[in-house]
Amino acid sequence: MEIERIPSGIPGLDGMVGGGIPRGHVVLVMGEPGSGKTILCSQFIHNGAALHGESGLYVTMDETREDIQREMRPFGWDFGKLEADGLFTFLDASPFRSRSGRSSKHLTAARLGEEVRRFARDMELDRIAIDPVAALLFQYPDVSERRNAILQLIDSIRATGATCLLTLEIRVSGYERDVQVEEYLAHGVLILRTLRSGSNFVRAVQVEKMRGTKIDLQPRPYVIGPDGITVYPEETIF
Amino acid sequence: MEIERIPSGIPGLDGMVGGGIPRGHVVLVMGEPGSGKTILCSQFIHNGAALHGESGLYVTMDETREDIQREMRPFGWDFGKLEADGLFTFLDASPFRSRSGRSSKHLTAARLGEEVRRFARDMELDRIAIDPVAALLFQYPDVSERRNAILQLIDSIRATGATCLLTLEIRVSGYERDVQVEEYLAHGVLILRTLRSGSNFVRAVQVEKMRGTKIDLQPRPYVIGPDGITVYPEETIF
Amino acid sequence: MEIERIPSGIPGLDGMVGGGIPRGHVVLVMGEPGSGKTILCSQFIHNGAALHGESGLYVTMDETREDIQREMRPFGWDFGKLEADGLFTFLDASPFRSRSGRSSKHLTAARLGEEVRRFARDMELDRIAIDPVAALLFQYPDVSERRNAILQLIDSIRATGATCLLTLEIRVSGYERDVQVEEYLAHGVLILRTLRSGSNFVRAVQVEKMRGTKIDLQPRPYVIGPDGITVYPEETIF
Amino acid sequence: MEIERIPSGIPGLDGMVGGGIPRGHVVLVMGEPGSGKTILCSQFIHNGAALHGESGLYVTMDETREDIQREMRPFGWDFGKLEADGLFTFLDASPFRSRSGRSSKHLTAARLGEEVRRFARDMELDRIAIDPVAALLFQYPDVSERRNAILQLIDSIRATGATCLLTLEIRVSGYERDVQVEEYLAHGVLILRTLRSGSNFVRAVQVEKMRGTKIDLQPRPYVIGPDGITVYPEETIF
Amino acid sequence: MEIERIPSGIPGLDGMVGGGIPRGHVVLVMGEPGSGKTILCSQFIHNGAALHGESGLYVTMDETREDIQREMRPFGWDFGKLEADGLFTFLDASPFRSRSGRSSKHLTAARLGEEVRRFARDMELDRIAIDPVAALLFQYPDVSERRNAILQLIDSIRATGATCLLTLEIRVSGYERDVQVEEYLAHGVLILRTLRSGSNFVRAVQVEKMRGTKIDLQPRPYVIGPDGITVYPEETIF
Amino acid sequence: MEIERIPSGIPGLDGMVGGGIPRGHVVLVMGEPGSGKTILCSQFIHNGAALHGESGLYVTMDETREDIQREMRPFGWDFGKLEADGLFTFLDASPFRSRSGRSSKHLTAARLGEEVRRFARDMELDRIAIDPVAALLFQYPDVSERRNAILQLIDSIRATGATCLLTLEIRVSGYERDVQVEEYLAHGVLILRTLRSGSNFVRAVQVEKMRGTKIDLQPRPYVIGPDGITVYPEETIF
Repeated sequence: MEIERIPSGIPGLDGMVGGGIPRGHVVLVMGEPGSGKTILCSQFIHNGAALHGESGLYVTMDETREDIQREMRPFGWDFGKLEADGLFTFLDASPFRSRSGRSSKHLTAARLGEEVRRFARDMELDRIAIDPVAALLFQYPDVSERRNAILQLIDSIRATGATCLLTLEIRVSGYERDVQVEEYLAHGVLILRTLRSGSNFVRAVQVEKMRGTKIDLQPRPYVIGPDGITVYPEETIF
Repeated sequence: MEIERIPSGIPGLDGMVGGGIPRGHVVLVMGEPGSGKTILCSQFIHNGAALHGESGLYVTMDETREDIQREMRPFGWDFGKLEADGLFTFLDASPFRSRSGRSSKHLTAARLGEEVRRFARDMELDRIAIDPVAALLFQYPDVSERRNAILQLIDSIRATGATCLLTLEIRVSGYERDVQVEEYLAHGVLILRTLRSGSNFVRAVQVEKMRGTKIDLQPRPYVIGPDGITVYPEETIF
Repeated sequence: MEIERIPSGIPGLDGMVGGGIPRGHVVLVMGEPGSGKTILCSQFIHNGAALHGESGLYVTMDETREDIQREMRPFGWDFGKLEADGLFTFLDASPFRSRSGRSSKHLTAARLGEEVRRFARDMELDRIAIDPVAALLFQYPDVSERRNAILQLIDSIRATGATCLLTLEIRVSGYERDVQVEEYLAHGVLILRTLRSGSNFVRAVQVEKMRGTKIDLQPRPYVIGPDGITVYPEETIF
Repeated sequence: MEIERIPSGIPGLDGMVGGGIPRGHVVLVMGEPGSGKTILCSQFIHNGAALHGESGLYVTMDETREDIQREMRPFGWDFGKLEADGLFTFLDASPFRSRSGRSSKHLTAARLGEEVRRFARDMELDRIAIDPVAALLFQYPDVSERRNAILQLIDSIRATGATCLLTLEIRVSGYERDVQVEEYLAHGVLILRTLRSGSNFVRAVQVEKMRGTKIDLQPRPYVIGPDGITVYPEETIF
Repeated sequence: MEIERIPSGIPGLDGMVGGGIPRGHVVLVMGEPGSGKTILCSQFIHNGAALHGESGLYVTMDETREDIQREMRPFGWDFGKLEADGLFTFLDASPFRSRSGRSSKHLTAARLGEEVRRFARDMELDRIAIDPVAALLFQYPDVSERRNAILQLIDSIRATGATCLLTLEIRVSGYERDVQVEEYLAHGVLILRTLRSGSNFVRAVQVEKMRGTKIDLQPRPYVIGPDGITVYPEETIF
Repeated sequence: MEIERIPSGIPGLDGMVGGGIPRGHVVLVMGEPGSGKTILCSQFIHNGAALHGESGLYVTMDETREDIQREMRPFGWDFGKLEADGLFTFLDASPFRSRSGRSSKHLTAARLGEEVRRFARDMELDRIAIDPVAALLFQYPDVSERRNAILQLIDSIRATGATCLLTLEIRVSGYERDVQVEEYLAHGVLILRTLRSGSNFVRAVQVEKMRGTKIDLQPRPYVIGPDGITVYPEETIF
């Protein structure tokens, strides 16, 4: 009984993770500032819908729906059209905007989980992106409560059957870093960084983890071009 | 009077620890995200039962029994069959799931110890895996209480006579790291990491400690393949 | 639909950020002591007005309007004339001076946002510089509140339509450093440092992030000369 | 007036410390997990009794008397026989086991000191091993109280006239580390580590301190073999 | 309109800072223990008075006026004579001595600022040295209050029109270090360290910052000789 | 007017500090465990009395008078004879022993200062050693109070006119380290460490600071031999 895999929509990435992301898994996308976390999520959702007919939900936390749409237009990704086709929807779950009056409910992992499940009931959801979860997790300074919040959120997502990307911020630049508790709980972890290779700085993606998958352990260069992110899985960094 | 050793079920590992894991010892398996801690535990339990007729208990903490079973199926490990044969059982001891209503009792080291002993009374237990203990230990922020909790848990496990693996998360990637108090209290410690060897990243296992055993001090490469983990004890990393 | 870009006013910089700074974006300028953050902001505002007819607002936080004017005179930048021409205005938002009696209102991100919007109502604002935001952000020791304060300030700035630079202090010298939460929330990030290149110390600017922009990832040398900052985008550091 | 020295019972070690450990001194044995601290203590006590007729007390803190006896049997050390000969005794001073009911008294440095003195009154004590003191010291988070607790314990031990080893855990692996306050208060300090020497990991002992003694400053390799620990004082590590 | 510069009185230093220190600026002198911060301050004040007829105020914080006078006599600097000539005065502002009864007023940045202004009213002040400000700043553990205290002190000094040196202690030896908030607020920063250059240790001064000035970015060696500090601006360190 | 210098009593050291230690100065001796801080202090006091007729006071903090006397006997230093000759006296100022009943007064910097002054009144004191001050300083966790305590102690010592060594513990091994506040307040600082030189570990002394003195900046090797510490001021370490 094989694990079913879905195309990520990122050229060159699927070969690093055994042919695609395991359907129904929750994958953490950790990246430095400017590494293209939002582009990767948008590309995953957009190409899933436009190329593979998979419906998607994009949960924004720090930016508005208008921000995302405008920023993704240069890549030729038209979320408005996908939405009209019933293949896409946005959820603005910013705890900042919630507090300032547009919604009275405080954001918790439980509440976000419910929202995601509610969307899944209304619409057959294949893909979810939550970008970034930092805004949510900073509300749980205690590591034990944070573990439970993440597990609860993962549980809710799993119940929908959708494949999900969660973006998370890296707190220290460079190669040595603290491992985040989230990396242990997610089914997969991708790390996006700018690494120094001799006298040059290059962007690289490394698969830290992908359950049920024989992964490529090496960091591979990627570029952000006119069609979004492209990974070069045959090239080396160092 | 020789120490009795049991085969770990991991090809290549037994030679690093004097021929096998000392029967009745509690061994810590520390690993980075994606290092295969759950695979190692499952392989230890499955091969113990399927190849050596040793009965096993798998205590899950972050994932459900269904998660583990599904994730291990690609390796051809059929825990359902072993369970039917009376050689295997699962215990879901997630403190997260416990709190959200499926069980009203709060998880403590003492209570987990009792549960393990109760299983051992019902069934002759040869092998135990508790994966991961992080969920339990994060509840003891005070290092003095944490020591006592671990010692109490080890005490309970020792009383069953079974050989036990406990998995623990590594908090910093790279070679320099803080030593965890658990490493001093367990009878053995295995460390699973992805190390940089020149321009290449490879997975390596290092035996930090194994009481009563002449150990191989060098880190050795391992791969996660179709049959689980295989260690290459003749190869070097650097 | 292309992103509109404005000339930064810093020779050599625009080529590193796809031809110019995206209009309406909020860009963080992080720099070590003496790296020229105030010069860069003044040059952005002055040249925007003098060369491109764009009106500007300079929000000072640690220094007075007189300090800035006097310090920028050697570069030949005459803010008094621009002010007389209706192309420029100063806002002294120092929380230090506010407390000592000149104003009774305590500075918050919300209040600063209101002030900026009030200026934008009175005057068509094209460019804003807030230098430095540290004085504001140190008042939010909790990272979750700090995120919200920054998002609220960015929201207010966005509403004006102006392009904005915010300066921030770097807390550790050298290449390895903690990533600040602000870097994730701003639309762009420039980093100004003194790097050691062999036996020589040189000033270098690196574009960490610029939304909607294909950026130059390499650090590039810059000098502070009689006309302000000049970047050498063809030269390498290491 | 020469300092009297006793043979440590560890082949190769005495030459590193001027011919033997000064009689009546309190020596700290710091070691990483799996470095053989318990083996070194047992060898010191066993060989002292079996080869030199010196009576010994072994204070266990984390393990039981049965654990130690069983683990040391492969080295051919029969503590039961020594006990029958009146040359040896065990004291189980585990604060963990004390709290769970076997004894109602809470362990303090003062109380442990009294216990040691009580044993010394009943039996002419030549050697003492307390393994490990971590369980005791973790109860004094304040460094000023911790200093006093250690000084009080050392005072009590000195009063017995016996030569004593105290084992302590190292909290960071690798060469750079924080110095523990205990290292300043003990009369001698031995450090047991696994060091990387080129592409190889080797065990090494280094004498940091030994009052009244001309010490060998270099780390020297050691192995744990069928007769316990052997140090190679003529070999170098790097 | 050129910035007016004054000779520092330190041979070799003025060339590193565009010909001299900008008149009226507040310059931070950061140095390791034994780097000669007090010598540099005394030389600045003495030579300013003796060679250029500029009147000076020396604010001592940890030492007494007698200490400074005695320690500077070997350099041939006679502060008593300058005082008699009305070109120099001492202010003992030690918070330690204040508390122990000689003065009942607690030292704050505001009060020190008032004292400095009071001196400036009585005497035309050209130069001020406050050595060290650490004793004052340690009283503001909150970074936000510390910023305000420094800004308030700088404000008071600016009001006098005098050029001022403030000495500050470096908390970590070596090249990587935390940037202090003071470095962002002062108009200039000089750093005095002992650096390792191959197998040799040498003293080096580096100009981190000097507003309105084209600075030499390289560290330059200096020596403390019979006439005080001499900088060698043509020599390199590494 | 030359600074008067006294011979340290340590062969090879005086040449590193301009011919001797400035009379009446307070010099900090910082050293790693086993570096010989107590030997250096004893040698300073003993040789001062035996060779130069200077009277000395030795303040012990962690050890007893008997400990020191016994440990120094192998070097041939007979403190009993010096005491009988009226050239030497001991003061046991251990806060540990004070608390446990032998004295009811709590040790503070003020009280230690009074004691030292009281001794100086009874006996013409030329030299003082306080070994170590850690036991005293750990009682001032607040850095601002700690500064005042040290200044107060230095003040009291200065009042006696005696030359004084204070020993202090180094908290991190290796070359990079935090600078202690004491290093800024003392008149001189000597650092005793074991440094790695190629594949060899050697003891080295470095003069960090010595007011009024042209110092040797290089670390120099030293050995602890039958006559105490000997420094080799012509040899290099690296």
